[in-house]
Amino acid sequence: MSTDELAGVHPAWLPPAAFRAIAARRVAVHGTGTLVDTVRAEVGATVDEDAELVLRVTGEVGALGEEGFELYRRDGVTVVLAGAPAGLLYGFFHVVRLGEAAFTGERPVERHLPAMRRRMLDHWDNVAVNPVMGQVERGYSGGSIFWRDGAQCDLARVRAYGRLLAATGVNAITINNVNVQAAAARLLTDRLGEVAAVAGVLRPYGIRVHLSVNFAAPVMLGGLPTADPLDEGVRAWWAETTRRVYEAIPDFGGYVVKADSEGQPGPFGYGRDHADGANVLADALAPFGGVVHWRAFVYNHRQDWRDRSTDRARAAYDHFAPLDGKFRDNAILQVKYGPIDFQTREPISPVIAAMPATNVAVELQVTQEYTGQQRHACYLGPMWSEVLGFPLTPDRDVAGLAKELIAVSNVGDDRFWTGHPLAQANLYAFGRFAWDPSLDPLSILDEWIDLALGPDVDRAALHAILDDSWRTYESYTAPLGVGFMVRPGHHYGPDVDGYEYTPWGTYHFADRDGVGVDRTRATGTGFTGQYPRPWSDVYESLERCPDELLLFFHHVPYGHVLHSGSTVIQHIYDTHFAGAERTVEMRRLWERLAGQVDADLDARVRERLDEQVRSAAEWRDQINTYFYRKSGVPDEKGRTIY
Amino acid sequence: MSTDELAGVHPAWLPPAAFRAIAARRVAVHGTGTLVDTVRAEVGATVDEDAELVLRVTGEVGALGEEGFELYRRDGVTVVLAGAPAGLLYGFFHVVRLGEAAFTGERPVERHLPAMRRRMLDHWDNVAVNPVMGQVERGYSGGSIFWRDGAQCDLARVRAYGRLLAATGVNAITINNVNVQAAAARLLTDRLGEVAAVAGVLRPYGIRVHLSVNFAAPVMLGGLPTADPLDEGVRAWWAETTRRVYEAIPDFGGYVVKADSEGQPGPFGYGRDHADGANVLADALAPFGGVVHWRAFVYNHRQDWRDRSTDRARAAYDHFAPLDGKFRDNAILQVKYGPIDFQTREPISPVIAAMPATNVAVELQVTQEYTGQQRHACYLGPMWSEVLGFPLTPDRDVAGLAKELIAVSNVGDDRFWTGHPLAQANLYAFGRFAWDPSLDPLSILDEWIDLALGPDVDRAALHAILDDSWRTYESYTAPLGVGFMVRPGHHYGPDVDGYEYTPWGTYHFADRDGVGVDRTRATGTGFTGQYPRPWSDVYESLERCPDELLLFFHHVPYGHVLHSGSTVIQHIYDTHFAGAERTVEMRRLWERLAGQVDADLDARVRERLDEQVRSAAEWRDQINTYFYRKSGVPDEKGRTIY
Repeated sequence: MSTDELAGVHPAWLPPAAFRAIAARRVAVHGTGTLVDTVRAEVGATVDEDAELVLRVTGEVGALGEEGFELYRRDGVTVVLAGAPAGLLYGFFHVVRLGEAAFTGERPVERHLPAMRRRMLDHWDNVAVNPVMGQVERGYSGGSIFWRDGAQCDLARVRAYGRLLAATGVNAITINNVNVQAAAARLLTDRLGEVAAVAGVLRPYGIRVHLSVNFAAPVMLGGLPTADPLDEGVRAWWAETTRRVYEAIPDFGGYVVKADSEGQPGPFGYGRDHADGANVLADALAPFGGVVHWRAFVYNHRQDWRDRSTDRARAAYDHFAPLDGKFRDNAILQVKYGPIDFQTREPISPVIAAMPATNVAVELQVTQEYTGQQRHACYLGPMWSEVLGFPLTPDRDVAGLAKELIAVSNVGDDRFWTGHPLAQANLYAFGRFAWDPSLDPLSILDEWIDLALGPDVDRAALHAILDDSWRTYESYTAPLGVGFMVRPGHHYGPDVDGYEYTPWGTYHFADRDGVGVDRTRATGTGFTGQYPRPWSDVYESLERCPDELLLFFHHVPYGHVLHSGSTVIQHIYDTHFAGAERTVEMRRLWERLAGQVDADLDARVRERLDEQVRSAAEWRDQINTYFYRKSGVPDEKGRTIY
Repeated sequence: MSTDELAGVHPAWLPPAAFRAIAARRVAVHGTGTLVDTVRAEVGATVDEDAELVLRVTGEVGALGEEGFELYRRDGVTVVLAGAPAGLLYGFFHVVRLGEAAFTGERPVERHLPAMRRRMLDHWDNVAVNPVMGQVERGYSGGSIFWRDGAQCDLARVRAYGRLLAATGVNAITINNVNVQAAAARLLTDRLGEVAAVAGVLRPYGIRVHLSVNFAAPVMLGGLPTADPLDEGVRAWWAETTRRVYEAIPDFGGYVVKADSEGQPGPFGYGRDHADGANVLADALAPFGGVVHWRAFVYNHRQDWRDRSTDRARAAYDHFAPLDGKFRDNAILQVKYGPIDFQTREPISPVIAAMPATNVAVELQVTQEYTGQQRHACYLGPMWSEVLGFPLTPDRDVAGLAKELIAVSNVGDDRFWTGHPLAQANLYAFGRFAWDPSLDPLSILDEWIDLALGPDVDRAALHAILDDSWRTYESYTAPLGVGFMVRPGHHYGPDVDGYEYTPWGTYHFADRDGVGVDRTRATGTGFTGQYPRPWSDVYESLERCPDELLLFFHHVPYGHVLHSGSTVIQHIYDTHFAGAERTVEMRRLWERLAGQVDADLDARVRERLDEQVRSAAEWRDQINTYFYRKSGVPDEKGRTIY
């Protein structure tokens, strides 16, 4: 591996300065194994006695599990105890995060355990460049870190990535796109060596590698006449193929499958259901401790816009809820947090509450497909905090209902990792939330600022830019939860009618009188009925439905008065003027960081903020003009609408 | 050259049967030269005496020019006299077209002379496949006939194409895309051999080869620091490069340039005007008898939709009219027939009348970019007849004002040549109109039917399908001359707001009250002022403006009453219901051809008609729904609008 590969690459949240507090101390590391060796290498020199920091694997897994650790400080010694090596690794990075605070005063015993057993990032990377999507589908940070020109990259970058992820608590990644095309399909067979190489590089960081596979692989790769999951030949092919995978990668994580969705093959093609589909893979993986992640993102993308009875929001529940209890224990149903598709604002997917006898993973999108594509500063921590803390059932929030947290990565071969340097905070926050969903998003942001930009930057300015940036983005884009209104295909920038007459099932039904999608049981698609109480009643009710989701659930006249006291049309105007104005303020605030950050990073952020200001004005003008042309209602404040 | 290349390729309008009348006769051919040899080869066996068909080059060019011929029949002998070999070739194909009619009764002397000195097809073929546009930009007939996989094709197909074109009277083609990318640029220099090979294959058919060149070629290929047309080094580079071209291809036609348009480089980049740009190329070509075609398609494609004072329709006139008289004699200004971009319905470009001291060529689009992309049957003959016969000035129609007729070809490596087999008629008609713009489009269609499908097919059914197919297409797509409303990028299918908020300058300004673009001098962009009288007054006047161009020139309320007596909104509904209904009838009419045409061709046409019916219904529903949602006006007849 070449170090050139990392020349000029921003160290993100692991710059040398982050280790200063540890480097100044005598450190003892006790334990054996790859992950302990990783800790030892991070520490540099270790001592056997008189240590001020003791990192110890006890070998008694017990209540701490494989990944937990205890931290305390007593008599001038900071101690991390872990039952197993993975816990020691996470404990070590916790000390890095604490910095000097880890070495001051006394500290009672704190127990740290991950809330989610699997904390996973999915890469939508293609082995070959796709002529339409580029190499990384919905990637905004350059090319893949795994493949270049159709072949495996130098893996120095992947190793550095693994280290960054370990420091946030992530313990699994899927390295290829869920839309598995020809070259990528072969990663399962004759290109398996490339997967093994990545696994080898990530193993020292406690990260297991998973692979997206094509449901039709038995046909594509195996030459079988069918991929029917109940066919004995197919079962045998998956079993044998999987056995070979584990021969090469003993700690292989498992498979990820997008089936019967947006053109991908799946069990429906053979008259089977999705439990049949998932279980054939689960059975192949079970002997080796692997899992299959089965995506619930299944809907009819050949919908007729004329047919208002079909509702894409209903699809996942309609398909999967009846299958509750039919999935194997090592099958995990991977559910996007909202019923549509990673929109800036959506209600929580009712599927998350609908399958108590199924392992459900909640999927977020760190890559900013619908939230500014890493050209707009949009810190997603507050959104994820709302999602994870949402009390979907009377006794459980989303974090409590989910067994795992998964997200689409925002990383590419960009030298700041994430295109927009400030988007690093989203990647960092994902790992931290997956470990502990109850964390405060602004405290997480503080951690990232400290580590990535240093403790001396203008923290207040950064908070002023980022704290509300998600709500700011929401304010100048699609209003009141209506979703989409983006340019078809690439999904960047406004196009109010862009999807309105397409087969994709994402409509707003704006006419001269009103706007929104009636998803009530009383008069609409009945989607509200998929929710447990009280939400089924709250969303059904025009009076009780929260403003920010009003147009997701109801079609209302432009004059409808919101809880805020504003009409829908005036709300659209007001938020769009305010949101665009706010981006100008964000750009101004960044000036305060001048000289405090690396000049390269400064230049990149400025360029992105300029684009955000331009784009927000475009959103403002298009959305306002569209609705003014339709409604004919002038802005109360007489501002310019074209 | 391989004959495999032509296996299964439809003979279009030169099937063996077309030659039956000649094959049955004794034919004498008198003259020498390549083109006479071509005629001789077409005839097969020739005789020296007792011929019933005599084809003779007199050697006296005189009134017949290089390309004209006389035809008469007297005493049982049909005679074609030409002053030069090219005339003999056209005379021969005229006899082919006449068939048995050439050999019956007496026939007085008819003199046939081409109306246009150059009758040219442009190919928008890329040497390499463009990831977005494919190989042929705006091509709907498969790949290029000139290049495959980045290299020159077997040229048997090109030879067959040349023969087809010669039979219609076409005498020039440009073989590569006006958007000249890297690989194609090199056709001018180190890949010149490929151009020479094509020229060699087309020479026997009287067709000269032209080349699209990149204005920045002196920089791209020559390594010069500038492409400034007034720079001596640049002038010398073009002169020397052109000398080498003529060394390889003595009858090379010349250059075609798209400059300062849609991202192509041009003289504006050096502070020069377009006459400066064209003249540097003209000067390089003049010693060898070559010409430069300079496209007038120049406009700002970074327009701000908020700025209603900018008008793309004005651009070509604003740029070029002041330059009248400044272009060299061997520079030809190539002007699209309408001021926007090959729309289904546009007014005639005022540039055509604005430059009496400039050689103006009128450009049509045989490839159906905006007229159904060869998935819809749309016979363009009637449109071109209207265009060419339009009395743009008090004493001249468009055909009289134009020195040349040029069109973008619709041909690719498809086995029917044109994707939709019926689209062959458009290619055929182009050549015939370029020879004689006064021809009746329905008679031309008859010729094509006779030649391509045989005299025994149900001619009435074909006329019923094709005669009004252009107006039918107009009826179910963008209404009343407003243009666009197509899906961005590929331009197929409806998207009413697809370009409404883009920088491309193609807007309709529909709001809840009305629709259309105010291009009047009184209150709009002033575009009407670019026309000579009476059109400047006719288009300015809301009362006098023809219905079919109303929304091109005026923004009117939905209730505005047309000359037809209908309101604008009811006209939209009525034409869209009727147009879509008409496509169903077209499909039904084709059933009458069952068993009369080749089964392959039948299947292809059926598949296309099915798509046309589907697509027309989609256009109907989207356009009607869009305007109903905006206007709130119900259909008088209560038909379904979604």
